[in-house]
Amino acid sequence: MSRRRYKHSEKKVGASPGTLIYVGQDIDYKTKIRRIDYNEANYTVEDIRRLASCSRPDATSDRVSWLDVDGIHEPRVVERIGQQYKLHPLLLEDVMNSQQKPKVEEYDGSYLFATLKMLYFKPASEELDSEHLSFVLGKNYLISFQEERRADLFQPVLDRIQASAGKTRRNGSDYLLYALMDLVVDHYFVVLDTIGEKLEVLEDSIIRQKAGQDTLTHLYTLKRELTLMRKAVWPVREMLSRLLLEESELIRPTTIPFLRDLYDHVVQVLDSIDSYRELATGLLDVYLSTLSNRMNSVMKTLTIFSAIFMPLTFIVGVYGMNFDNMPELHTRNGYFVVLGIMAVLTVLMIIYFRRRRWF
Amino acid sequence: MSRRRYKHSEKKVGASPGTLIYVGQDIDYKTKIRRIDYNEANYTVEDIRRLASCSRPDATSDRVSWLDVDGIHEPRVVERIGQQYKLHPLLLEDVMNSQQKPKVEEYDGSYLFATLKMLYFKPASEELDSEHLSFVLGKNYLISFQEERRADLFQPVLDRIQASAGKTRRNGSDYLLYALMDLVVDHYFVVLDTIGEKLEVLEDSIIRQKAGQDTLTHLYTLKRELTLMRKAVWPVREMLSRLLLEESELIRPTTIPFLRDLYDHVVQVLDSIDSYRELATGLLDVYLSTLSNRMNSVMKTLTIFSAIFMPLTFIVGVYGMNFDNMPELHTRNGYFVVLGIMAVLTVLMIIYFRRRRWF
Amino acid sequence: MSRRRYKHSEKKVGASPGTLIYVGQDIDYKTKIRRIDYNEANYTVEDIRRLASCSRPDATSDRVSWLDVDGIHEPRVVERIGQQYKLHPLLLEDVMNSQQKPKVEEYDGSYLFATLKMLYFKPASEELDSEHLSFVLGKNYLISFQEERRADLFQPVLDRIQASAGKTRRNGSDYLLYALMDLVVDHYFVVLDTIGEKLEVLEDSIIRQKAGQDTLTHLYTLKRELTLMRKAVWPVREMLSRLLLEESELIRPTTIPFLRDLYDHVVQVLDSIDSYRELATGLLDVYLSTLSNRMNSVMKTLTIFSAIFMPLTFIVGVYGMNFDNMPELHTRNGYFVVLGIMAVLTVLMIIYFRRRRWF
Amino acid sequence: MSRRRYKHSEKKVGASPGTLIYVGQDIDYKTKIRRIDYNEANYTVEDIRRLASCSRPDATSDRVSWLDVDGIHEPRVVERIGQQYKLHPLLLEDVMNSQQKPKVEEYDGSYLFATLKMLYFKPASEELDSEHLSFVLGKNYLISFQEERRADLFQPVLDRIQASAGKTRRNGSDYLLYALMDLVVDHYFVVLDTIGEKLEVLEDSIIRQKAGQDTLTHLYTLKRELTLMRKAVWPVREMLSRLLLEESELIRPTTIPFLRDLYDHVVQVLDSIDSYRELATGLLDVYLSTLSNRMNSVMKTLTIFSAIFMPLTFIVGVYGMNFDNMPELHTRNGYFVVLGIMAVLTVLMIIYFRRRRWF
Amino acid sequence: MSRRRYKHSEKKVGASPGTLIYVGQDIDYKTKIRRIDYNEANYTVEDIRRLASCSRPDATSDRVSWLDVDGIHEPRVVERIGQQYKLHPLLLEDVMNSQQKPKVEEYDGSYLFATLKMLYFKPASEELDSEHLSFVLGKNYLISFQEERRADLFQPVLDRIQASAGKTRRNGSDYLLYALMDLVVDHYFVVLDTIGEKLEVLEDSIIRQKAGQDTLTHLYTLKRELTLMRKAVWPVREMLSRLLLEESELIRPTTIPFLRDLYDHVVQVLDSIDSYRELATGLLDVYLSTLSNRMNSVMKTLTIFSAIFMPLTFIVGVYGMNFDNMPELHTRNGYFVVLGIMAVLTVLMIIYFRRRRWF
Ligand SMILES: [Mg+2]
Ligand SMILES: [Mg+2]
Ligand SMILES: [Mg+2]
Ligand SMILES: [Mg+2]
Ligand SMILES: [Mg+2]
Ligand SMILES: [Mg+2]
Ligand SMILES: [Mg+2]
Ligand SMILES: [Mg+2]
Ligand SMILES: [Mg+2]
Ligand SMILES: [Mg+2]
Ligand SMILES: [Mg+2]
Ligand SMILES: [Mg+2]
Ligand SMILES: [Mg+2]
Ligand SMILES: [Mg+2]
Ligand SMILES: [Mg+2]
Ligand SMILES: [Mg+2]
Ligand SMILES: [Mg+2]
Ligand SMILES: [Mg+2]
Ligand SMILES: [Mg+2]
Ligand SMILES: [Mg+2]
Ligand SMILES: [Mg+2]
Ligand SMILES: [Mg+2]
Ligand SMILES: [Mg+2]
Ligand SMILES: [Mg+2]
Ligand SMILES: [Mg+2]
Ligand SMILES: [Mg+2]
Ligand SMILES: [Mg+2]
Ligand SMILES: [Mg+2]
Ligand SMILES: [Mg+2]
Ligand SMILES: [Mg+2]
Ligand SMILES: [Mg+2]
Repeated sequence: MSRRRYKHSEKKVGASPGTLIYVGQDIDYKTKIRRIDYNEANYTVEDIRRLASCSRPDATSDRVSWLDVDGIHEPRVVERIGQQYKLHPLLLEDVMNSQQKPKVEEYDGSYLFATLKMLYFKPASEELDSEHLSFVLGKNYLISFQEERRADLFQPVLDRIQASAGKTRRNGSDYLLYALMDLVVDHYFVVLDTIGEKLEVLEDSIIRQKAGQDTLTHLYTLKRELTLMRKAVWPVREMLSRLLLEESELIRPTTIPFLRDLYDHVVQVLDSIDSYRELATGLLDVYLSTLSNRMNSVMKTLTIFSAIFMPLTFIVGVYGMNFDNMPELHTRNGYFVVLGIMAVLTVLMIIYFRRRRWF
Repeated sequence: MSRRRYKHSEKKVGASPGTLIYVGQDIDYKTKIRRIDYNEANYTVEDIRRLASCSRPDATSDRVSWLDVDGIHEPRVVERIGQQYKLHPLLLEDVMNSQQKPKVEEYDGSYLFATLKMLYFKPASEELDSEHLSFVLGKNYLISFQEERRADLFQPVLDRIQASAGKTRRNGSDYLLYALMDLVVDHYFVVLDTIGEKLEVLEDSIIRQKAGQDTLTHLYTLKRELTLMRKAVWPVREMLSRLLLEESELIRPTTIPFLRDLYDHVVQVLDSIDSYRELATGLLDVYLSTLSNRMNSVMKTLTIFSAIFMPLTFIVGVYGMNFDNMPELHTRNGYFVVLGIMAVLTVLMIIYFRRRRWF
Repeated sequence: MSRRRYKHSEKKVGASPGTLIYVGQDIDYKTKIRRIDYNEANYTVEDIRRLASCSRPDATSDRVSWLDVDGIHEPRVVERIGQQYKLHPLLLEDVMNSQQKPKVEEYDGSYLFATLKMLYFKPASEELDSEHLSFVLGKNYLISFQEERRADLFQPVLDRIQASAGKTRRNGSDYLLYALMDLVVDHYFVVLDTIGEKLEVLEDSIIRQKAGQDTLTHLYTLKRELTLMRKAVWPVREMLSRLLLEESELIRPTTIPFLRDLYDHVVQVLDSIDSYRELATGLLDVYLSTLSNRMNSVMKTLTIFSAIFMPLTFIVGVYGMNFDNMPELHTRNGYFVVLGIMAVLTVLMIIYFRRRRWF
Repeated sequence: MSRRRYKHSEKKVGASPGTLIYVGQDIDYKTKIRRIDYNEANYTVEDIRRLASCSRPDATSDRVSWLDVDGIHEPRVVERIGQQYKLHPLLLEDVMNSQQKPKVEEYDGSYLFATLKMLYFKPASEELDSEHLSFVLGKNYLISFQEERRADLFQPVLDRIQASAGKTRRNGSDYLLYALMDLVVDHYFVVLDTIGEKLEVLEDSIIRQKAGQDTLTHLYTLKRELTLMRKAVWPVREMLSRLLLEESELIRPTTIPFLRDLYDHVVQVLDSIDSYRELATGLLDVYLSTLSNRMNSVMKTLTIFSAIFMPLTFIVGVYGMNFDNMPELHTRNGYFVVLGIMAVLTVLMIIYFRRRRWF
Repeated sequence: MSRRRYKHSEKKVGASPGTLIYVGQDIDYKTKIRRIDYNEANYTVEDIRRLASCSRPDATSDRVSWLDVDGIHEPRVVERIGQQYKLHPLLLEDVMNSQQKPKVEEYDGSYLFATLKMLYFKPASEELDSEHLSFVLGKNYLISFQEERRADLFQPVLDRIQASAGKTRRNGSDYLLYALMDLVVDHYFVVLDTIGEKLEVLEDSIIRQKAGQDTLTHLYTLKRELTLMRKAVWPVREMLSRLLLEESELIRPTTIPFLRDLYDHVVQVLDSIDSYRELATGLLDVYLSTLSNRMNSVMKTLTIFSAIFMPLTFIVGVYGMNFDNMPELHTRNGYFVVLGIMAVLTVLMIIYFRRRRWF
């Protein structure tokens, strides 16, 4: 789980609502903006350099206009796009707040705002990280905001648009929104698989009793990841069920079955998260009882040694005393008799502990 | 619990929705398709070799047409059946996704899609496994999809059709759907019985204090199985309650009491799962406290030995010292007095520990 | 808790719905049937020997006809009664399925089916057991089915009918149903009292620290009993709240306050079950910490002995060495000085451990 | 928590519903009845000795008539009052059943029945106890039933009536009901404060590590008290929310804000109960880990002693052997060399354990 | 968490409802009152010294009148303000009750009462503390009550009013209410950050195994703080969702998106609280298993020492016996043979424990 600290709280105390402040990690590149325009017949891809050309498409256009904004850390950029598309300031604030949890909101039926989290394991550190994504859906346009430059997050959808045959080109901006969210949910399964593999490794080491203190730290990390993932995915379920129930005019009826399918997948992710949490808890119990069992076996070893050697050491101590008058010392076989007695005692002890199944 | 890994996630990232990819175990046989046509008067059973003959029956036919598809791993086959019966691509995707959780969906009132899990213990490994089953219910037809070839899963229902007397022949395709789902739920009880027996064995070994590290692994496995089972059965409850509430035109009123009965059984399964989970948790507590008790008894043994022999060994050590001037050594009965003192000490110790109920 | 195993699952797989198979313990007597007919003016009690005379009373009769069937293990008998009273086959299946959980169902407004569990401690083994009871309520008749012959389960109600003064005689078949269910719920309180007493005994032994491994097994058994009881009583609450809400024509308005009262009692039973569960969990915590405390005290004893005698034994060992040149050995008071040093050391150790409050 | 046993269960089995049996502790005084009549202008207080004078006030009277019944253990008295006021027998049963949980019920819109629990710590034993209170609210009368004689439970309200200025005199019987229930809820806060203080004492002793086995028993008792309190207060919340929602004609609109305020307070009590439960669970965890920590420290002490003295004792043992040919024994400084080696060994051991932070 | 005790319970028992008693800490300054009047054009700030001048503004005024009351401990002051603004006595009681939990209530559509908690860490003691805030919202006025003097709680909002450009001046009293509540919620994030940092420190010390008894106390304190915070924030969520749903006339439609944004933030706070609680529980598990692991390692050390030195000490004890006839003593290499045997024994032991991975 990511440990970066968002020290935004102090900054924001008392700030006027709608004040745009980026809340997230430091980022050192400029926002990249790209516009993809398409209909069933053709498409254009254009890199945008001047903010002034980010204008909202004409309401009568039958083309879908997708504005893909890569970077949410420059208030000036986000604000300007907001002005061009006439978006509410609070919406822009949510776009820039990387801690905003997933939700969907409709503004006067004229546009719809949706935000959710991309999840992935950071290549270097194997830490689970999340990226804040936002979408503004208009009748014939879609704006997508990505938090930071992960090479080709939306590339597969762009590929499908460029390959002329796909369903995407034949459908509207709402289907494009679905396609992008579906991409995000597909990544949830990838993350889930990684977590599942980690859990299996832990299970193996715990059940084969090769687990050490390390294992527990891994189990804890895994639980943290599941907690983080649940926090990110749970609201997506609610968000989709609202989209399905509220019958927005921006969502065409033909897109509904696709959103229902997406909802299904999100529920499946949540079910797996819950199963994994239960399994992790079960593993902890197994591990703790393994520790108790080991302790028991260590203590038995100690006790067996003590129970055998303490009496013997006492006996040889007795005959090491220097009393003048100790008749046994002067008998012929005293030494051998004592050795015999000790042998018998040892055997008896061993039989006793065997019977009590101590070893 | 099955440990096969479904590495479908990577494959599916970015795939166009409705793309048919089989998600499940490798399977090496060809799909087998069989059509059973019947009405009250007679029936026919036919093995289908050419996909072209899998056509949807005429809507005016008064016979029930049951297409039993054995194998969901060949996209080409599933797709072709989908075309013949005019099924939605997302439905076909769900048929092939062996991780799809149980649900029911109606498409335009013209057909109804239901999917659930068959559960069974694998003969060889005693592992709980699940098989993905899907049903498409039309007015006078039913398509059933089975994930893999388990010899005679639906045989009992076919037997009842062939034995002319049964209720099945007198009823429609919806009753056939019920009969097949009832078969699945009947198997849940068989699995539940096996788990119940395992739990009883564990209980026995834990309460009679014969449990070792092994027992805990079994308890954990059992909890995993209950988690898997709950995950598979819980949505079936919701699925049936929706069928009962939503009054689909595809479900005849006479079939409703049978579905209500089925609902009852599913609830009973879920209740038992929950009871078993509670019992398993209780057993873990008993086991852990048994470990603590045993440790206590081991430590008491050790302490008693130490408390008796440490002072004695010290005393004999004293008289083993080589000081020139140790008057006791030269008395007549010194040795015997010391032996006596040690005997008294031992008896006192034993009395003391008895009083404190240490043994 | 009863440990009898209901191996019905295998038998039932694939059986046609409505097939009557008794699911419960083996029973070796014949079903006894008794009919009690009464109105405010008079009553008759009749033992029925021929199934043909179990006929449904005439709908116009103003008498209440109570058919009390003692035994549900003979499919032939249950089936025949079902035919005479025109009952649905699924209802009869539920009557014979002793694992059916409590519920209420109305069939076409013409009769109402209710089933619940009688609970009692088996006299011999002190195990909690349940008996499956079912009721069919018609306008002027009631059929009651009991699983096995417990001498006089419904006797108190019969007594009230025979004593002419009672409310029962003045009311209809619905009041009779209430009276019988009230009897069952009254027994829940008796069972609850027994469990409460057991819990108090356990609490006593745990808090006074007299608890051993046994105690924990008893605690576990008690939790099992509470789990079983909750499973049996919880659905009764739902069943009664449905009866109160759904305003069946078979339930007269004057009977409603009595059912509401019954509902109250069931809620009270459930509350007590939950409190007992919490207390049992609390006791487990107390017990486990008692074990830890005891272990601490055992280990302290051991450590005190070791810390005192190990140094002493070492010292006497030093002067037991056989070096030629050990000047101390030849001093006059060497022996007494060493004894003195050891005494001082012992006192210091004791003071040290007293200060750390080890004893 | 009170441990008195209500062995009413056996008595009640099979009793006709509405049979009045007192369920509670043995009580040996006679029921005292007092009637307070008032309107804004004046009031009268009268001790009632003959049951015949407990008559329901005339419906046209504009005075409030409060009948305060002190004692619910005499069936004859309760039954007679029931007859005079024309109350339902099941209501009377609830009045006498001290285990009846809090609820509110309206009978035909003509009177309203409310029952709840007074909670207090018994002066002698410091045990939390509850007293069963019931109220019957008519248009211009209120009957209050108290379980047993606690000197002046309702005295503060009577005082406010007698002090002519109060709001109580200006309002109706519903406001009187509110005032009495408010008194009861005020006592919940007193009980809560006592429990809070106990918890703080426990917290102190646990966090300062002065806790012993005793502490845990106190923690358990406290949890029991919280369980009992929750069981008594939880239904009061539901009861008040029903009063607020159902708009009974017996509750004047001006009384509604007061009931809403009362509801607030009950919710506050429940919140505090839940917080206390969480804190108690947290304290248990702290205590158990303290035990583990102590054990660790005890074991370290033991191990350090053993690790230092066992090798030393072995070494001196070696030179205590009586072999003829042991060259070291006859060297000049053998003894001093051995002493030196042992000193070095001891220092090394101490350094080693210091490094591992064992002390 | 603050440990001050509110011993108000006894005082309030039996007090007439609406009796104003301050429930909170002792405070020794006088209430300060300030009125800020503003519209888009200009504003005035006035310190109020005479309570008579705290009059409700004329209903026709188009200015917003904000009365900021600093201190709720003087019943006389609160009562007088209540009279001037014609507020309900129960509302005033809630203003003065610092334990009142957050809620919103509308009085006859003419004014709206809202109360919530300010949370902050006390500078000196690092304890989490809460301050009781209340608001009365009228059509063109707002009264704010603060519990105690924390220098500049509402200063940022006043600053925005004074800086003429802000949104606050252009909007009504409802927006002012929002702005003040937003300020409070912003502080929740600050508190959350502090708790998050503490948790990270604890995590670090536990995972790096540097945790001692102290750590656990800190973990417990942190859980207490989360419990307190949850108790304070949870009802704010309900309060805002009621404001959003109930469409009060006092809340203008333009303010709704801002309240929705606030709701979002509160949900985000609650989500983080829950995640932190889970993490804290996970850390406790890690810590407890660390203790077990350490104990295991201590015990292994002890057992290894014992298992090696007990047999050796016994052997040298054997040859320290003083029997006349012990042939080995008189052989030439007896001593060296015994030394050799002991060396071999030691090596074997070490190999054995290595194989069992004890070190
Ligand atoms: Mg904000
Ligand atoms: Mg926002
Ligand atoms: Mg997040
Ligand atoms: Mg969030
Ligand atoms: Mg997808
Ligand atoms: Mg799907
Ligand atoms: Mg997909
Ligand atoms: Mg699965
Ligand atoms: Mg799914
Ligand atoms: Mg599944
Ligand atoms: Mg079935
Ligand atoms: Mg059934
Ligand atoms: Mg549990
Ligand atoms: Mg069946
Ligand atoms: Mg049962
Ligand atoms: Mg059942
Ligand atoms: Mg009853
Ligand atoms: Mg009652
Ligand atoms: Mg009764
Ligand atoms: Mg009670
Ligand atoms: Mg009752
Ligand atoms: Mg109660
Ligand atoms: Mg009050
Ligand atoms: Mg716990
Ligand atoms: Mg009050
Ligand atoms: Mg209040
Ligand atoms: Mg507070
Ligand atoms: Mg309150
Ligand atoms: Mg509060
Ligand atoms: Mg804010
Ligand atoms: Mg948890």
